[in-house]
Amino acid sequence: MYSYVLLINTRDEQELVHKITGVISKCGLNIINNNEFVEKERKRFFMRSEIVGKFDKEKLLEELKKVLSEKAEVKLVENKKKRIVVLATKEHHCLGDLLLRESYDEINAEIVAVLANHNDLKPLVDKFDKPFYCVSTENKEKHAQEKEVLDIIEKYNPDYVILAKYMRILSPDFVEHLKDRIINIHHSFLPAFIGANPYKKAFIRGVKIIGATAHFVSDDLDDGPIITQEVISINHEYSADDMKKAGREAEKAALAKALKLVFEEKVFISGNKTIVLG
Amino acid sequence: MYSYVLLINTRDEQELVHKITGVISKCGLNIINNNEFVEKERKRFFMRSEIVGKFDKEKLLEELKKVLSEKAEVKLVENKKKRIVVLATKEHHCLGDLLLRESYDEINAEIVAVLANHNDLKPLVDKFDKPFYCVSTENKEKHAQEKEVLDIIEKYNPDYVILAKYMRILSPDFVEHLKDRIINIHHSFLPAFIGANPYKKAFIRGVKIIGATAHFVSDDLDDGPIITQEVISINHEYSADDMKKAGREAEKAALAKALKLVFEEKVFISGNKTIVLG
Amino acid sequence: MYSYVLLINTRDEQELVHKITGVISKCGLNIINNNEFVEKERKRFFMRSEIVGKFDKEKLLEELKKVLSEKAEVKLVENKKKRIVVLATKEHHCLGDLLLRESYDEINAEIVAVLANHNDLKPLVDKFDKPFYCVSTENKEKHAQEKEVLDIIEKYNPDYVILAKYMRILSPDFVEHLKDRIINIHHSFLPAFIGANPYKKAFIRGVKIIGATAHFVSDDLDDGPIITQEVISINHEYSADDMKKAGREAEKAALAKALKLVFEEKVFISGNKTIVLG
Amino acid sequence: MYSYVLLINTRDEQELVHKITGVISKCGLNIINNNEFVEKERKRFFMRSEIVGKFDKEKLLEELKKVLSEKAEVKLVENKKKRIVVLATKEHHCLGDLLLRESYDEINAEIVAVLANHNDLKPLVDKFDKPFYCVSTENKEKHAQEKEVLDIIEKYNPDYVILAKYMRILSPDFVEHLKDRIINIHHSFLPAFIGANPYKKAFIRGVKIIGATAHFVSDDLDDGPIITQEVISINHEYSADDMKKAGREAEKAALAKALKLVFEEKVFISGNKTIVLG
Repeated sequence: MYSYVLLINTRDEQELVHKITGVISKCGLNIINNNEFVEKERKRFFMRSEIVGKFDKEKLLEELKKVLSEKAEVKLVENKKKRIVVLATKEHHCLGDLLLRESYDEINAEIVAVLANHNDLKPLVDKFDKPFYCVSTENKEKHAQEKEVLDIIEKYNPDYVILAKYMRILSPDFVEHLKDRIINIHHSFLPAFIGANPYKKAFIRGVKIIGATAHFVSDDLDDGPIITQEVISINHEYSADDMKKAGREAEKAALAKALKLVFEEKVFISGNKTIVLG
Repeated sequence: MYSYVLLINTRDEQELVHKITGVISKCGLNIINNNEFVEKERKRFFMRSEIVGKFDKEKLLEELKKVLSEKAEVKLVENKKKRIVVLATKEHHCLGDLLLRESYDEINAEIVAVLANHNDLKPLVDKFDKPFYCVSTENKEKHAQEKEVLDIIEKYNPDYVILAKYMRILSPDFVEHLKDRIINIHHSFLPAFIGANPYKKAFIRGVKIIGATAHFVSDDLDDGPIITQEVISINHEYSADDMKKAGREAEKAALAKALKLVFEEKVFISGNKTIVLG
Repeated sequence: MYSYVLLINTRDEQELVHKITGVISKCGLNIINNNEFVEKERKRFFMRSEIVGKFDKEKLLEELKKVLSEKAEVKLVENKKKRIVVLATKEHHCLGDLLLRESYDEINAEIVAVLANHNDLKPLVDKFDKPFYCVSTENKEKHAQEKEVLDIIEKYNPDYVILAKYMRILSPDFVEHLKDRIINIHHSFLPAFIGANPYKKAFIRGVKIIGATAHFVSDDLDDGPIITQEVISINHEYSADDMKKAGREAEKAALAKALKLVFEEKVFISGNKTIVLG
Repeated sequence: MYSYVLLINTRDEQELVHKITGVISKCGLNIINNNEFVEKERKRFFMRSEIVGKFDKEKLLEELKKVLSEKAEVKLVENKKKRIVVLATKEHHCLGDLLLRESYDEINAEIVAVLANHNDLKPLVDKFDKPFYCVSTENKEKHAQEKEVLDIIEKYNPDYVILAKYMRILSPDFVEHLKDRIINIHHSFLPAFIGANPYKKAFIRGVKIIGATAHFVSDDLDDGPIITQEVISINHEYSADDMKKAGREAEKAALAKALKLVFEEKVFISGNKTIVLG
């Protein structure tokens, strides 16, 4: 297994690969996997390298600075489990799936806490011995409730916050505070059926395929860079409720795949899109 | 093979299957395949039976009338090739696929004519010895051009008109005139990316799956009962043009499957949805 | 929801649907969903009806006998949870998935006990408060170990025994004893890669898709009627171990779907095949 | 668009990317897309680069020689259409699909001739104005017939020979003669159902998914490096003939995708596997 991932996101220019691999050689690193991508529209260069061995991290970053433009974003990330806080409401399927995967090391993360606005999921979380917080939204101002949620989150200092069917719209402040660190699973094939009750809408529209979308959360509802999408074929026999149940499988799969990719440092955010390397 | 299909679409009530199969027995028919479906929301009963053998058609329909409500829709369709007129613009892929399938009896239809608003596809149509008409939209009023198109269509008395990437919006009059007999292939996974340039929109949105939708045409643009949908996984490496090319595969597949179903009399229209039996 | 399922498996003959629906009407049953299928090769007729309401079960079966051939198999099954015993070895993913689904009523079954030939999965099973038995195969004759396993199973009187990655070959006696009641998940797309180490074999063969198969267990290894199959696309970057991990998703999905179908009484066994209705 | 593809297949060693990109910079090339892969089991390094601009080809290859091991395989391929000869028997679907795609520049190839052991497909080939040869196998020794086929093929000096449902087993001599240049579409999801009549076998086995495999042809029947595989879900309603018809869609898709990849120089052969880059 690799012990570090080097992530470079910079303006595209000539000879970048040669220059960067030159630095890597100079610093005595052993690359075991390497991927590059040039996004032509935005003229951006992305590179992801899995590195093993002992080396001087400061020196590596310093040498890279010399060959890259000033504004280049360079990250050298140790390959260790991400700390995550999961937010949910009443639906169990995504949360249960994550708890199981976490307990068998399938997503490179540690669930440090679970928070919900109802108590329904407490028994499930208890099974896996994780702290569970219920922060109700009833009789509370949105701002006050979010403050409470944020305080709990910050106590755990997580790398990411996962909305595993957390059925609340977050305020721009909340989102800004955790910029690029909130991942949501939306229960439709975005951008179809934005907003509430997508399965009801899908039923009324008579679609033949339903889907789910895992994405980073940005200010706009159901917007933000898409990481993964999954679909499931249905037919006229499905009621709105059947769709909802079938859709759970797509939701679980899309979220689990997205988290695996993000937590293995394979996902770059580029404007409103994601670049997935490695 | 079956020689007739009996299609019943009526208000749901008790004992319908027993009553209908009673009539079928009485008339000495041999059913080789039978499917029913009850649409609970609209309280509609749908039944499709494949029938072989000799029998008195008038008598069958008369006897069915006795056991069904007055408003029941009953169709007894001989299993023969549908006559279809295909409308296109410049893109070859759906049209070429249909011409090939037709020439090898894969879709239970005969293409009696092809019509386009440009001349680009004439050489392709000529290969298959089909009449080709070019009705340009330039320097013409919409109404006049549509009138010209309709006149040609009517000359061929088709069962269905297929929009195989005909990139024009049809007027309500045109649609009404061919009610429930126009099938369109839309180059997106409806209801995502309604309207023009869906691949450009998909590219900008950064989706990870693209799709295509075959549907009956109703008054509203990109609305109408959906018959089939197909999807294709993509990634950040796809340009808008790559998506367009990849999307062609989904378009071809969705349209061919939809036509096969419709031309084998497997599709009921129920409000803005389709019920697919058999 | 329906409260009974009527299942008929008989020799195909004329007017069966009419006769059977006649009995159903006569007995005052309310059918809310009905499906038939005729298997032409074996000349068998299959019918599945979901029934609601109060009725005299004895009378229904008696009346059906009058209109069906002597050898017809007729089952009237109350819609209640199946009792299942799950057998596993060390791998958690299928078992964990089933425990979660069971605890949220997703598969119409109650897991009454879990049995494994190793102790690794005990902590997982304990989380869900289910009895766990470890019956090691070490230093034991196959026959003796199987006897022990069977004694435990019989104590629970299950409807079905699920092999959720139980990596042992069962003796014909064992299989015969639980005829048509053992469901296995095989970690390959049968009939490709029969036997041990399918992912290793798939890796060596360089396939581009891997799969999983849920099937009833018959005497022959990896034979028996197939219920569901699932596939996952892979590429040259996958090691045998990566395939194994990716394959788990197909295994979980194939098994969960198969069990849902079987436990909702939607699966007929016909020779070495399954007929899935409803 | 790129005008050259540089393909390197060599023993893996340190700093290869840096050395190769150094040569590329030195020779003034402009890389617009670059992909590498290290196959750990065989310790092989693969690199594919799309290059634009004017440069001295001899010099590039000479300089690369200096930094690579003696046994490295280096190919610099101009991006132009491959010349292909298609072999078929009676089935039209793959051949028709290729003829259409070729005529609209979808697979980066020119079909220079079509050869079959029956005359059935002549009308189809005539539509597209391609030379058609019928070399019957009746009353001929296998060796003699193959000699005839090979003579015709060689007249056209093709880059690849495509077996688009050519239902004959080729002799080792024939295969050796066109080593790594014959691509076959096999009508099953290999390695399931090797040999003749796969759909019949699939029907008897009662599988729930069928598939198709495009692969390079090696000595052993249905062996050889797999390029692409496609699958289609089926159910108990499919007769062996229905499976065959449905399977055609998978066959067409698998073959078209494989050819697109090969003809865009994206496929390396490594032992009995393929590495697909770019």
